[in-house]
Amino acid sequence: MTEPNPRISVFPNPDDPRLTAIVGGIDQTGAPVRARVVTERPLTLFLNAQEIVTLMTIGDHPEALGLGFLLNQHMLRAGDVITGVDVDGDLGVVVVRTERQTDYEEKLKKKTRTSGCAQGTVFGDMMDGFDEIELEASAILRTSWLYGLTKKINQIPSLYLSAGAIHGCVLCCRDAPLLYMEDVGRHNAVDKIAGLMYQRTITPEDKILYTTGRLTSEMVIKTVQMRIPILVSRSGFTAWGVELAQKAGLTLIGRARGHRFVALAGAARLVFDEQVKMGGDA
Amino acid sequence: MTEPNPRISVFPNPDDPRLTAIVGGIDQTGAPVRARVVTERPLTLFLNAQEIVTLMTIGDHPEALGLGFLLNQHMLRAGDVITGVDVDGDLGVVVVRTERQTDYEEKLKKKTRTSGCAQGTVFGDMMDGFDEIELEASAILRTSWLYGLTKKINQIPSLYLSAGAIHGCVLCCRDAPLLYMEDVGRHNAVDKIAGLMYQRTITPEDKILYTTGRLTSEMVIKTVQMRIPILVSRSGFTAWGVELAQKAGLTLIGRARGHRFVALAGAARLVFDEQVKMGGDA
Repeated sequence: MTEPNPRISVFPNPDDPRLTAIVGGIDQTGAPVRARVVTERPLTLFLNAQEIVTLMTIGDHPEALGLGFLLNQHMLRAGDVITGVDVDGDLGVVVVRTERQTDYEEKLKKKTRTSGCAQGTVFGDMMDGFDEIELEASAILRTSWLYGLTKKINQIPSLYLSAGAIHGCVLCCRDAPLLYMEDVGRHNAVDKIAGLMYQRTITPEDKILYTTGRLTSEMVIKTVQMRIPILVSRSGFTAWGVELAQKAGLTLIGRARGHRFVALAGAARLVFDEQVKMGGDA
Repeated sequence: MTEPNPRISVFPNPDDPRLTAIVGGIDQTGAPVRARVVTERPLTLFLNAQEIVTLMTIGDHPEALGLGFLLNQHMLRAGDVITGVDVDGDLGVVVVRTERQTDYEEKLKKKTRTSGCAQGTVFGDMMDGFDEIELEASAILRTSWLYGLTKKINQIPSLYLSAGAIHGCVLCCRDAPLLYMEDVGRHNAVDKIAGLMYQRTITPEDKILYTTGRLTSEMVIKTVQMRIPILVSRSGFTAWGVELAQKAGLTLIGRARGHRFVALAGAARLVFDEQVKMGGDA
């Protein structure tokens, strides 16, 4: 069994008072109750002098979120030298500075026309290079790791457990959760993972990405673009997500709860080292 | 008890073969399985000659989705005369035509700069007029209606029950579900509700909106903009969603499962006609 390396593990901090608020209300009997709810606040991202986007986020790890957003939108390139990441928490601003001059005026316009702004999908740019990506063929997923991961992730203290109404993404190695990020938007959670991987020089080829959200086309595209060969969710699939995973050779596992799961793409990476009895627990 | 009026009720059609696909895979024992998964396909929306957005959708009710998107983005105004809505299912295009000439070039640009494209939030425009909206004060929600609605909605045949991985929104009157829309994106589901309400001249003041999704700021803003005074979810809250609901006087009910719920705003509209025993069922 692999224990998380404390030097690289980053887990949720549900006790951070900035991330939740206590709100008074009433319950089904009319009695007063106090409910803990997650916060969401605007974070405006600049790349050098250009305003790129305002993200609604719970507000933790703003540097990682800014970097990850730019990486996953292909606004930062492999060779880019980052000269600084400045955060002003009061203003809700993060500024990423690069040696290379950047100008995405045209790219931002193109997005509006091709995919618009209101639906969380920017396929025009996100699919860039998708067809050429070759995911690590030798990566494997032992079923014992999968069962260990889902159990461990469910037990790690999180905003999900303390307040609910939040998405989580977890980067894992073998049976060890390494980076566990949460946010109101599942895209923010996976973008924070991308940013932390960049900051900590974590390689993707032998990793597993776990998400609490559905296995949509966008989630599959992001995982493939991040070069992670295995994507697992406790939730279900969409048809296009499955189709894209099959094309890219991504191992796609959904409905992973207890000792049950369904693999709809890339099943060759699975190693059945922990057999489940017929009629076993769910 | 109010029965749904068949002339205005629209419910999911999980047997529509265009909405799901059967995909082969393997389960936790390595045995082959066939899984039903929801489809998602691009639908490009034009307002007159202008391309507005490409939405990823399951593909049902494209007219309602197009109209509802434009209404909820304030691109259609109250006095607009719609001269036609044309759908080309093969091309994945819906065209909404109005008497008034429309030009949203500047509006589309502004969105990119203020809120960007990747996160499903377009606050710059969506908040327009939010502070001036007065929701119907005399609207009520009996707890007996609420318990009846959650039970009925859970029993209506749906893509959620047959394939999972989908969001649902249901417009209700008293204890009767009227319009039940589903989509991969929860915004599409609520936009379809807005479009159908417009097409069928359904008034919002005495209605209840039920959503399977979380009670985020966006969901609250849309509900208020649609003039619906009561919003219910089986999921949880975000802090900003609660704050906006309190400001707007929206009745906001979350964690509604069985005979339990929490109201964090607008509790004055609740009528406790069905008392729950302490320690009653959950």
